[in-house]
Amino acid sequence: MKWSGWGVEGVAFNPDNKPAFAPFVKKAVGLDLSVPAVPPAEFSDLTLPSTTIDDDFLGRLAAIVGADNAITENKSRLVHTYGKSIRDLIRIRASDLPRMPDVVLYPADEGQVAQIVELAVAQNAVVIPFGGGSNIAGSLTPNEGEARVVISLDLGRLNDVVSIDEGSGLARIQAGAQGPRIEEQLNERGWTMGHFPDSFTHSTLGGWVATRSSGMQSDKYGDIADITRGLRMVRPNGIVSIRPVPSASTGPSVREMILGSEGRLGVITEVTVQVHRVPEVREINGYLFPNWEAGIAAMHEISESDAHPTVTRVSDARESGFSFATGKEKTGFDPQKVLMAFLEKRGWDLEGINLSFIGFEGSKSHVAYEKKIVARIVKKHGGLGVGKGPGVLYDQKKFDTPYLRDFLLDRGAAADVSETAAPWSRLNEIHDAVYAAANEAYEQIGTPGWIMSHLSHSYHSGACLYFTFAFVHDGENAIAQYDVVKRAIQQAFVDHGGTISHHHGVGREHSPWLEQDISTEGVALMRGLFESADPKSNFNPDKVLAD
Amino acid sequence: MKWSGWGVEGVAFNPDNKPAFAPFVKKAVGLDLSVPAVPPAEFSDLTLPSTTIDDDFLGRLAAIVGADNAITENKSRLVHTYGKSIRDLIRIRASDLPRMPDVVLYPADEGQVAQIVELAVAQNAVVIPFGGGSNIAGSLTPNEGEARVVISLDLGRLNDVVSIDEGSGLARIQAGAQGPRIEEQLNERGWTMGHFPDSFTHSTLGGWVATRSSGMQSDKYGDIADITRGLRMVRPNGIVSIRPVPSASTGPSVREMILGSEGRLGVITEVTVQVHRVPEVREINGYLFPNWEAGIAAMHEISESDAHPTVTRVSDARESGFSFATGKEKTGFDPQKVLMAFLEKRGWDLEGINLSFIGFEGSKSHVAYEKKIVARIVKKHGGLGVGKGPGVLYDQKKFDTPYLRDFLLDRGAAADVSETAAPWSRLNEIHDAVYAAANEAYEQIGTPGWIMSHLSHSYHSGACLYFTFAFVHDGENAIAQYDVVKRAIQQAFVDHGGTISHHHGVGREHSPWLEQDISTEGVALMRGLFESADPKSNFNPDKVLAD
Repeated sequence: MKWSGWGVEGVAFNPDNKPAFAPFVKKAVGLDLSVPAVPPAEFSDLTLPSTTIDDDFLGRLAAIVGADNAITENKSRLVHTYGKSIRDLIRIRASDLPRMPDVVLYPADEGQVAQIVELAVAQNAVVIPFGGGSNIAGSLTPNEGEARVVISLDLGRLNDVVSIDEGSGLARIQAGAQGPRIEEQLNERGWTMGHFPDSFTHSTLGGWVATRSSGMQSDKYGDIADITRGLRMVRPNGIVSIRPVPSASTGPSVREMILGSEGRLGVITEVTVQVHRVPEVREINGYLFPNWEAGIAAMHEISESDAHPTVTRVSDARESGFSFATGKEKTGFDPQKVLMAFLEKRGWDLEGINLSFIGFEGSKSHVAYEKKIVARIVKKHGGLGVGKGPGVLYDQKKFDTPYLRDFLLDRGAAADVSETAAPWSRLNEIHDAVYAAANEAYEQIGTPGWIMSHLSHSYHSGACLYFTFAFVHDGENAIAQYDVVKRAIQQAFVDHGGTISHHHGVGREHSPWLEQDISTEGVALMRGLFESADPKSNFNPDKVLAD
Repeated sequence: MKWSGWGVEGVAFNPDNKPAFAPFVKKAVGLDLSVPAVPPAEFSDLTLPSTTIDDDFLGRLAAIVGADNAITENKSRLVHTYGKSIRDLIRIRASDLPRMPDVVLYPADEGQVAQIVELAVAQNAVVIPFGGGSNIAGSLTPNEGEARVVISLDLGRLNDVVSIDEGSGLARIQAGAQGPRIEEQLNERGWTMGHFPDSFTHSTLGGWVATRSSGMQSDKYGDIADITRGLRMVRPNGIVSIRPVPSASTGPSVREMILGSEGRLGVITEVTVQVHRVPEVREINGYLFPNWEAGIAAMHEISESDAHPTVTRVSDARESGFSFATGKEKTGFDPQKVLMAFLEKRGWDLEGINLSFIGFEGSKSHVAYEKKIVARIVKKHGGLGVGKGPGVLYDQKKFDTPYLRDFLLDRGAAADVSETAAPWSRLNEIHDAVYAAANEAYEQIGTPGWIMSHLSHSYHSGACLYFTFAFVHDGENAIAQYDVVKRAIQQAFVDHGGTISHHHGVGREHSPWLEQDISTEGVALMRGLFESADPKSNFNPDKVLAD
């Protein structure tokens, strides 16, 4: 990954073939895209703190993993300092680096992880497990004033599908394996895990488990908490090994204690996940709704129906407008224009259109059957099916949004996301409250700001609402400005029955709201678990709960 | 509930109209049902330990709940001493009562529960929450040598559906509500929770949550862990309040810490559960398979298919034979006989038939659609659909088995159950291993014994195997004999990839195998949670983990 942004070098958002984009941005946040970008500083311009590890300790760590895999070189320490939130990117680009890890270790296997953990705890060092580095909740950053040696434990070499139990639909996979590598190895043998978070291309299985991730197709495949059946986690005195059983009544679930633990209980080395046979047919279809309420009501009715789609997603009018604005220029016949003319004739407010995607999988006849059930519900709520075309496009572009975020950051705009989950009956209320809170925050910081939203991840009793917000920051106070907006949104979540994060974890970014979310006594139980498991705070301190 | 057995007075198993039953029992365990039963002793014959609570403490507790709801009377203390395992029944009938609770409290509301908990901890008393008393894992029994005052906290007065969020499919229900009352109150308004454990008629929502229960229709509705969205639990310093969100990434799940905690973390007072609209059609259909392997393979293929039945269940040849033997006498035309003749002609081994039930719910057309998918799979595995008749019978009798267990106990036979869950690929292995282990145990205790099994609760990657075992005990050593058999079965579970309990909890009955199941380090994490939450072991000590 680039040290200063998302993804691999050479890939970037390209506005040139998207004529509606610049006017859209100008209108939304007042940013003029014709003004040249200010690219991030060169790596060589950064001021970096030196490693504090002494030769003896480093030597003993290098003896475990090999000298080539115990790195104190600056660039490696830098990319292991932060995740990829807008806060992280602003700080790293500004050389705001009070504490970098002292050493980055790349163990080859679980045995080496166990040796590192044992030695680190004996030396009272700090261990921060590192997967793909895509986290946006501040879960990877060492404490500013950390006086102990900080080890970033990169699981990147533990990256294989170990075995597939084809008779059960279970795969043992090493925790450091990234999304594409997992699906590639599974697909080769006819299987899929079905877990596709936005970060898929750069995040790892261990990271997904440690942050309780959820993928785009969770309606069918479940959240990572459902997909995860077995686990192995290295602790100072040995390995927690949870065998892959489909369900159990064996006391408070230790599997669920590890899920979401963000490195505070130990280092996850291997996960046994549910895998499914690659379906005969996989389709994502586009739908339009005349307004947000109709879209939500349709998604709710689908979740209660006999159909089981893989994806249910509906963007509000603003996000739909954004999607239309990032469309490529059409030459010749433009079906979208024809459609819009048709809808206008039928009395739709074109500014209020809500774009929706619904995914189907299974046999050909099953997909046809479910599409029919869904079509009936969509129609009942005044919606309209627009076929596979938009779905194919959505599928192609689904992992690209972070590149756009970096494009905007190069031009002085800060953009990030916050998401929640709540009961169906409260989604409209939350949507309105978050918009009001964000707009009030923009007023407070004196900048025109943008916010847009979609519903995704439907469950029987509720769904996830996902918000994207952006504004032109003033440089010096960028992070303070961001905090005003982000805090307003998070507070609106908990004030209106939503949780503080549906799938990005807690880290440091969301921990201030945890007591309001799961109650003071709920946090006390969690703290008791952390403190009993890690009395000297050697494992990723200060994350999930502030120490 | 009867103090000496299951269910209400006046209801009992009746063998008179089941001509095949007595010969079946004679052959299975050597018990002659023509020998008269020895009914349990009279209550007045029991020797009961006195309460140890002093007047001052009792007076303060009575001041909270009212004198009528602070009971030190013997019969009430007796029925709050044990659950309903065979061990419990043998002990209670033998006056084996080393420690009964000193007082049974019936709080009226959560506020009274909080006052009790606060006072109990201040007085260093023991609090054992009590729901329906149906537990078979030893989760309710005070420690033999307990020197402190033991309070049985009966939630029976907290028994209402508080409210239904019809816009979300969520119901707030008090923890002490029993199955029938919950479904009655929900059904009146068109909803169902869909949770039907074997104990349904006498168990409570709080008990289901505290033991991670699972109901017969879990294939559709989920285990109680899935159904439970929000929770309230009283702790010494306040209330843990988990709001009903459909999913969250907020660190190790506190909801999941409370699920399965068996009273060790506090007293569950209220649960917000998912509820579903009562379906248009609900059907359970019968199927026959020529052998066990075919039945299992069909259930597995159904779990991977596009169909989503509510119930998938298949009994092995022994349990199927048992079912046939408990059938009522037919006069005139007997379709079962006709069917058997037909199958014999087609070459089936009638002794090897596996009886299966599969449930369907939804619209009329949806049930027809899913039945077609299932029929194709059943046929592929050599099975045969036998229609709704057997399903109706199964549905009527599904809660009656415990009465049969008491009938046998009155006649000197000990019967109980053990169940596990494991990956699909290991189910046959476990089935064989458990049979071998049980038979070896019977040989060891020198008694002919019986064991039978069914698969139920299918998941994507595995299923539950449920074993029922019985033997004629020798009176004096009944419990020692039971231990030999039970231990052999539990050891076979963990030796072959199964968990120690799928839905009955851990209590004391299963805790000896917990380290083998979730690893020593997994148990250490759990112990850290318990000890940090309850440093003086005031809450149901010694359960889940031995103190």
